[in-house]
Amino acid sequence: MADVKKLDDLFHDTLKDVYFAERKIVETLPKMERAASNSQLKAAFTKHLSETKVHIERLEQVFQIIGKKPEPKTCAAILGITDEGAEIMKEYAGSPALDAGLLAAAQAVEHYEMSRYGTLRTWALELGLNDAAGLLQTTLDEEQETDLALTSIATSVVNQNAEA
Amino acid sequence: MADVKKLDDLFHDTLKDVYFAERKIVETLPKMERAASNSQLKAAFTKHLSETKVHIERLEQVFQIIGKKPEPKTCAAILGITDEGAEIMKEYAGSPALDAGLLAAAQAVEHYEMSRYGTLRTWALELGLNDAAGLLQTTLDEEQETDLALTSIATSVVNQNAEA
Repeated sequence: MADVKKLDDLFHDTLKDVYFAERKIVETLPKMERAASNSQLKAAFTKHLSETKVHIERLEQVFQIIGKKPEPKTCAAILGITDEGAEIMKEYAGSPALDAGLLAAAQAVEHYEMSRYGTLRTWALELGLNDAAGLLQTTLDEEQETDLALTSIATSVVNQNAEA
Repeated sequence: MADVKKLDDLFHDTLKDVYFAERKIVETLPKMERAASNSQLKAAFTKHLSETKVHIERLEQVFQIIGKKPEPKTCAAILGITDEGAEIMKEYAGSPALDAGLLAAAQAVEHYEMSRYGTLRTWALELGLNDAAGLLQTTLDEEQETDLALTSIATSVVNQNAEA
Protein backbone atom coordinates (compact mmCIF):
# COMPACT_ATOMS: atom_id res chain seq x y z
CA MET A 1 0.00 0.00 0.00
CA ALA A 2 2.77 2.42 0.86
CA ASP A 3 4.70 1.30 -2.22
CA VAL A 4 6.75 4.07 -3.79
CA LYS A 5 5.62 4.70 -7.34
CA LYS A 6 8.24 4.18 -10.01
CA LEU A 7 8.78 4.80 -13.72
CA ASP A 8 6.56 1.89 -14.74
CA ASP A 9 3.69 3.44 -12.76
CA LEU A 10 4.32 6.82 -14.35
CA PHE A 11 4.33 5.15 -17.78
CA HIS A 12 1.01 3.43 -17.02
CA ASP A 13 -0.59 6.63 -15.62
CA THR A 14 0.52 8.67 -18.64
CA LEU A 15 -0.72 5.98 -21.04
CA LYS A 16 -4.18 6.27 -19.44
CA ASP A 17 -3.99 10.07 -19.79
CA VAL A 18 -3.22 9.86 -23.53
CA TYR A 19 -5.88 7.16 -24.00
CA PHE A 20 -8.43 9.59 -22.54
CA ALA A 21 -7.09 12.41 -24.73
CA GLU A 22 -7.28 10.41 -27.98
CA ARG A 23 -10.87 9.39 -27.25
CA LYS A 24 -11.77 13.02 -26.58
CA ILE A 25 -10.16 13.98 -29.90
CA VAL A 26 -12.26 11.40 -31.76
CA GLU A 27 -15.31 13.12 -30.27
CA THR A 28 -14.09 16.62 -31.17
CA LEU A 29 -12.74 16.26 -34.71
CA PRO A 30 -16.14 15.79 -36.44
CA LYS A 31 -17.33 19.06 -34.84
CA MET A 32 -14.24 20.85 -36.13
CA GLU A 33 -14.70 19.34 -39.58
CA ARG A 34 -18.31 20.56 -39.71
CA ALA A 35 -17.29 24.05 -38.54
CA ALA A 36 -14.47 24.43 -41.11
CA SER A 37 -15.08 26.16 -44.46
CA ASN A 38 -11.83 25.49 -46.29
CA SER A 39 -11.91 22.17 -48.17
CA GLN A 40 -8.24 21.36 -47.46
CA LEU A 41 -8.86 21.89 -43.76
CA LYS A 42 -12.01 19.74 -43.79
CA ALA A 43 -10.04 16.97 -45.53
CA ALA A 44 -7.19 17.26 -42.99
CA PHE A 45 -9.65 16.84 -40.08
CA THR A 46 -11.29 13.83 -41.75
CA LYS A 47 -7.91 12.19 -42.40
CA HIS A 48 -6.77 12.86 -38.85
CA LEU A 49 -9.95 11.32 -37.45
CA SER A 50 -9.20 7.98 -39.09
CA GLU A 51 -5.55 8.18 -37.97
CA THR A 52 -6.66 8.92 -34.41
CA LYS A 53 -8.76 5.76 -34.36
CA VAL A 54 -5.61 3.81 -35.25
CA HIS A 55 -3.68 5.65 -32.50
CA ILE A 56 -6.26 4.38 -30.02
CA GLU A 57 -5.74 0.81 -31.24
CA ARG A 58 -1.96 1.22 -30.86
CA LEU A 59 -2.43 2.47 -27.28
CA GLU A 60 -4.53 -0.63 -26.60
CA GLN A 61 -1.65 -2.76 -27.89
CA VAL A 62 0.72 -0.95 -25.51
CA PHE A 63 -1.65 -1.62 -22.58
CA GLN A 64 -1.58 -5.27 -23.62
CA ILE A 65 2.25 -5.31 -23.73
CA ILE A 66 2.42 -4.11 -20.10
CA GLY A 67 -0.34 -6.56 -19.09
CA LYS A 68 -2.94 -3.93 -18.23
CA LYS A 69 -6.53 -3.35 -19.26
CA PRO A 70 -7.01 -0.25 -21.50
CA GLU A 71 -8.44 2.39 -19.21
CA PRO A 72 -8.76 6.16 -19.61
CA LYS A 73 -7.82 8.65 -16.87
CA THR A 74 -9.29 12.15 -17.05
CA CYS A 75 -6.77 14.40 -18.78
CA ALA A 76 -7.31 17.99 -17.62
CA ALA A 77 -4.94 19.27 -20.28
CA ILE A 78 -6.90 17.99 -23.28
CA LEU A 79 -10.16 19.16 -21.69
CA GLY A 80 -8.68 22.66 -21.36
CA ILE A 81 -7.35 22.64 -24.93
CA THR A 82 -10.63 21.40 -26.43
CA ASP A 83 -12.65 23.87 -24.31
CA GLU A 84 -10.63 26.67 -25.87
CA GLY A 85 -11.38 25.23 -29.31
CA ALA A 86 -15.11 25.09 -28.51
CA GLU A 87 -14.99 28.73 -27.36
CA ILE A 88 -13.41 29.76 -30.68
CA MET A 89 -16.07 27.85 -32.65
CA LYS A 90 -18.72 29.80 -30.73
CA GLU A 91 -17.10 33.25 -30.74
CA TYR A 92 -15.97 33.10 -34.38
CA ALA A 93 -19.03 31.38 -35.88
CA GLY A 94 -19.67 33.05 -39.24
CA SER A 95 -16.32 34.87 -39.16
CA PRO A 96 -13.77 34.63 -41.99
CA ALA A 97 -11.21 34.01 -39.21
CA LEU A 98 -12.94 30.83 -37.99
CA ASP A 99 -10.75 28.49 -40.04
CA ALA A 100 -7.60 30.17 -38.67
CA GLY A 101 -8.95 29.67 -35.15
CA LEU A 102 -9.76 26.01 -35.85
CA LEU A 103 -6.25 25.49 -37.17
CA ALA A 104 -4.74 27.05 -34.06
CA ALA A 105 -6.88 24.81 -31.83
CA ALA A 106 -5.92 21.72 -33.82
CA GLN A 107 -2.22 22.58 -33.63
CA ALA A 108 -2.45 23.01 -29.84
CA VAL A 109 -3.94 19.49 -29.70
CA GLU A 110 -1.18 18.09 -31.93
CA HIS A 111 1.54 19.68 -29.81
CA TYR A 112 0.07 18.25 -26.64
CA GLU A 113 0.05 14.80 -28.20
CA MET A 114 3.58 15.18 -29.55
CA SER A 115 4.88 15.99 -26.07
CA ARG A 116 3.05 13.01 -24.53
CA TYR A 117 4.07 10.49 -27.20
CA GLY A 118 7.69 11.71 -27.09
CA THR A 119 7.72 11.24 -23.32
CA LEU A 120 6.08 7.81 -23.47
CA ARG A 121 8.44 6.62 -26.22
CA THR A 122 11.48 7.68 -24.16
CA TRP A 123 10.17 5.95 -21.04
CA ALA A 124 9.28 2.79 -23.00
CA LEU A 125 12.90 2.56 -24.22
CA GLU A 126 14.15 3.17 -20.69
CA LEU A 127 11.90 0.36 -19.41
CA GLY A 128 13.10 -2.02 -22.14
CA LEU A 129 9.66 -2.06 -23.81
CA ASN A 130 11.02 -1.90 -27.34
CA ASP A 131 7.85 -3.01 -29.12
CA ALA A 132 5.82 -0.42 -27.24
CA ALA A 133 8.43 2.23 -28.07
CA GLY A 134 8.06 1.37 -31.77
CA LEU A 135 4.26 1.73 -31.66
CA LEU A 136 4.52 5.05 -29.81
CA GLN A 137 7.16 6.33 -32.24
CA THR A 138 4.91 5.50 -35.23
CA THR A 139 2.09 7.55 -33.74
CA LEU A 140 4.49 10.38 -32.82
CA ASP A 141 5.64 10.52 -36.46
CA GLU A 142 2.03 10.76 -37.63
CA GLU A 143 1.22 13.55 -35.16
CA GLN A 144 4.25 15.49 -36.38
CA GLU A 145 3.18 15.01 -40.01
CA THR A 146 -0.33 16.23 -39.17
CA ASP A 147 1.12 19.30 -37.48
CA LEU A 148 3.27 20.08 -40.53
CA ALA A 149 0.27 19.60 -42.85
CA LEU A 150 -1.80 22.01 -40.71
CA THR A 151 1.04 24.58 -40.76
CA SER A 152 1.13 24.39 -44.52
CA ILE A 153 -2.66 24.89 -44.78
CA ALA A 154 -2.43 27.76 -42.27
CA THR A 155 0.20 29.69 -44.13
CA SER A 156 -1.05 29.06 -47.66
CA VAL A 157 -4.80 29.40 -47.51
CA VAL A 158 -6.67 30.06 -44.33
CA ASN A 159 -4.98 33.21 -43.14
CA GLN A 160 -5.73 34.93 -46.41
CA ASN A 161 -9.42 34.13 -45.96
CA ALA A 162 -9.28 35.38 -42.41
CA GLU A 163 -8.45 38.88 -43.55
CA ALA A 164 -11.19 38.97 -46.18
CA MET B 1 -22.01 45.43 -31.85
CA ALA B 2 -22.79 42.90 -34.54
CA ASP B 3 -19.31 43.34 -35.99
CA VAL B 4 -17.89 40.14 -37.41
CA LYS B 5 -14.64 39.24 -35.69
CA LYS B 6 -11.62 39.02 -37.96
CA LEU B 7 -8.01 37.85 -37.87
CA ASP B 8 -6.85 40.91 -35.89
CA ASP B 9 -9.39 40.06 -33.17
CA LEU B 10 -8.24 36.45 -33.14
CA PHE B 11 -4.63 37.64 -32.86
CA HIS B 12 -5.53 39.92 -29.93
CA ASP B 13 -7.58 37.19 -28.16
CA THR B 14 -4.78 34.64 -28.55
CA LEU B 15 -2.20 37.17 -27.34
CA LYS B 16 -4.21 37.59 -24.13
CA ASP B 17 -4.41 33.78 -23.78
CA VAL B 18 -0.62 33.40 -24.02
CA TYR B 19 -0.10 36.38 -21.70
CA PHE B 20 -2.20 34.56 -19.09
CA ALA B 21 -0.30 31.32 -19.74
CA GLU B 22 3.17 32.89 -19.33
CA ARG B 23 2.14 34.50 -16.04
CA LYS B 24 0.84 31.15 -14.80
CA ILE B 25 4.16 29.55 -15.79
CA VAL B 26 6.12 32.17 -13.77
CA GLU B 27 4.01 31.12 -10.78
CA THR B 28 4.53 27.39 -11.41
CA LEU B 29 8.25 27.09 -12.26
CA PRO B 30 9.58 27.84 -8.73
CA LYS B 31 7.39 24.99 -7.38
CA MET B 32 8.78 22.62 -9.99
CA GLU B 33 12.33 23.74 -9.24
CA ARG B 34 11.83 23.04 -5.53
CA ALA B 35 10.31 19.62 -6.26
CA ALA B 36 13.12 18.52 -8.61
CA SER B 37 16.08 16.48 -7.31
CA ASN B 38 18.39 16.45 -10.30
CA SER B 39 20.71 19.47 -10.37
CA GLN B 40 20.59 19.84 -14.17
CA LEU B 41 16.80 19.85 -14.05
CA LYS B 42 16.76 22.42 -11.22
CA ALA B 43 19.09 24.64 -13.24
CA ALA B 44 16.93 24.26 -16.37
CA PHE B 45 13.83 25.39 -14.45
CA THR B 46 15.69 28.38 -12.97
CA LYS B 47 16.99 29.41 -16.40
CA HIS B 48 13.56 29.04 -17.96
CA LEU B 49 12.00 31.19 -15.23
CA SER B 50 14.19 34.15 -16.16
CA GLU B 51 13.52 33.57 -19.87
CA THR B 52 9.77 33.45 -19.21
CA LYS B 53 9.92 36.87 -17.55
CA VAL B 54 11.48 38.21 -20.77
CA HIS B 55 8.76 36.46 -22.82
CA ILE B 56 6.17 38.41 -20.81
CA GLU B 57 7.95 41.67 -21.60
CA ARG B 58 7.99 40.77 -25.31
CA LEU B 59 4.25 40.06 -25.22
CA GLU B 60 3.76 43.51 -23.62
CA GLN B 61 5.69 45.01 -26.54
CA VAL B 62 3.39 43.19 -28.99
CA PHE B 63 0.31 44.57 -27.16
CA GLN B 64 1.87 48.02 -27.54
CA ILE B 65 2.47 47.46 -31.28
CA ILE B 66 -1.24 46.73 -31.81
CA GLY B 67 -2.24 49.66 -29.58
CA LYS B 68 -3.78 47.57 -26.82
CA LYS B 69 -3.29 47.39 -23.06
CA PRO B 70 -1.61 44.14 -21.88
CA GLU B 71 -4.43 42.06 -20.47
CA PRO B 72 -4.62 38.35 -19.62
CA LYS B 73 -7.56 36.12 -20.62
CA THR B 74 -8.07 32.86 -18.71
CA CYS B 75 -6.38 30.07 -20.65
CA ALA B 76 -8.11 26.77 -19.84
CA ALA B 77 -5.38 24.83 -21.63
CA ILE B 78 -2.50 26.00 -19.43
CA LEU B 79 -4.62 25.52 -16.31
CA GLY B 80 -5.27 21.92 -17.36
CA ILE B 81 -1.61 21.29 -18.16
CA THR B 82 -0.36 22.79 -14.88
CA ASP B 83 -3.06 20.93 -12.89
CA GLU B 84 -1.69 17.69 -14.28
CA GLY B 85 1.81 18.78 -13.24
CA ALA B 86 0.57 19.55 -9.71
CA GLU B 87 -1.06 16.11 -9.54
CA ILE B 88 2.24 14.46 -10.47
CA MET B 89 4.12 16.46 -7.81
CA LYS B 90 1.62 15.18 -5.25
CA GLU B 91 1.33 11.56 -6.40
CA TYR B 92 5.06 11.07 -7.00
CA ALA B 93 6.41 13.01 -4.00
CA GLY B 94 9.39 11.04 -2.68
CA SER B 95 9.45 8.78 -5.74
CA PRO B 96 12.60 8.28 -7.86
CA ALA B 97 10.28 8.88 -10.86
CA LEU B 98 9.32 12.40 -9.73
CA ASP B 99 11.95 14.12 -11.90
CA ALA B 100 10.76 12.19 -14.96
CA GLY B 101 7.20 13.32 -14.21
CA LEU B 102 8.30 16.95 -13.78
CA LEU B 103 10.13 16.79 -17.10
CA ALA B 104 7.04 15.43 -18.84
CA ALA B 105 4.90 18.22 -17.35
CA ALA B 106 7.43 20.85 -18.40
CA GLN B 107 7.59 19.49 -21.94
CA ALA B 108 3.78 19.59 -22.20
CA VAL B 109 3.96 23.27 -21.21
CA GLU B 110 6.71 23.96 -23.77
CA HIS B 111 4.74 22.28 -26.54
CA TYR B 112 1.65 24.30 -25.73
CA GLU B 113 3.67 27.49 -25.93
CA MET B 114 5.39 26.42 -29.15
CA SER B 115 2.02 25.90 -30.81
CA ARG B 116 0.70 29.28 -29.63
CA TYR B 117 3.83 31.27 -30.56
CA GLY B 118 4.00 29.55 -33.98
CA THR B 119 0.36 30.48 -34.61
CA LEU B 120 0.79 34.08 -33.41
CA ARG B 121 3.96 34.54 -35.47
CA THR B 122 2.16 33.32 -38.64
CA TRP B 123 -0.82 35.60 -38.00
CA ALA B 124 1.46 38.60 -37.26
CA LEU B 125 3.15 38.14 -40.66
CA GLU B 126 -0.25 37.81 -42.33
CA LEU B 127 -1.39 41.05 -40.66
CA GLY B 128 1.80 42.86 -41.75
CA LEU B 129 3.02 43.20 -38.14
CA ASN B 130 6.63 42.39 -38.93
CA ASP B 131 8.14 43.72 -35.70
CA ALA B 132 5.65 41.71 -33.66
CA ALA B 133 6.42 38.63 -35.77
CA GLY B 134 10.13 39.06 -34.98
CA LEU B 135 9.49 39.27 -31.23
CA LEU B 136 7.22 36.20 -31.32
CA GLN B 137 9.76 34.24 -33.39
CA THR B 138 12.52 35.03 -30.87
CA THR B 139 10.41 33.61 -28.06
CA LEU B 140 9.41 30.61 -30.18
CA ASP B 141 13.10 29.84 -30.76
CA GLU B 142 13.76 29.97 -27.00
CA GLU B 143 10.83 27.67 -26.22
CA GLN B 144 12.13 25.17 -28.78
CA GLU B 145 15.64 25.34 -27.26
CA THR B 146 14.18 24.76 -23.79
CA ASP B 147 12.25 21.75 -25.06
CA LEU B 148 15.42 20.28 -26.63
CA ALA B 149 17.38 20.89 -23.41
CA LEU B 150 14.67 19.10 -21.40
CA THR B 151 14.71 16.16 -23.84
CA SER B 152 18.44 15.86 -23.41
CA ILE B 153 18.14 15.88 -19.59
CA ALA B 154 15.26 13.35 -19.82
CA THR B 155 17.14 10.83 -21.90
CA SER B 156 20.54 11.18 -20.24
CA VAL B 157 19.85 11.45 -16.53
CA VAL B 158 16.40 11.47 -15.08
CA ASN B 159 14.99 8.28 -16.51
CA GLN B 160 17.87 6.31 -15.07
CA ASN B 161 17.06 7.67 -11.63
CA ALA B 162 13.41 6.86 -12.12
CA GLU B 163 14.16 3.16 -12.31
CA ALA B 164 16.34 3.15 -9.19
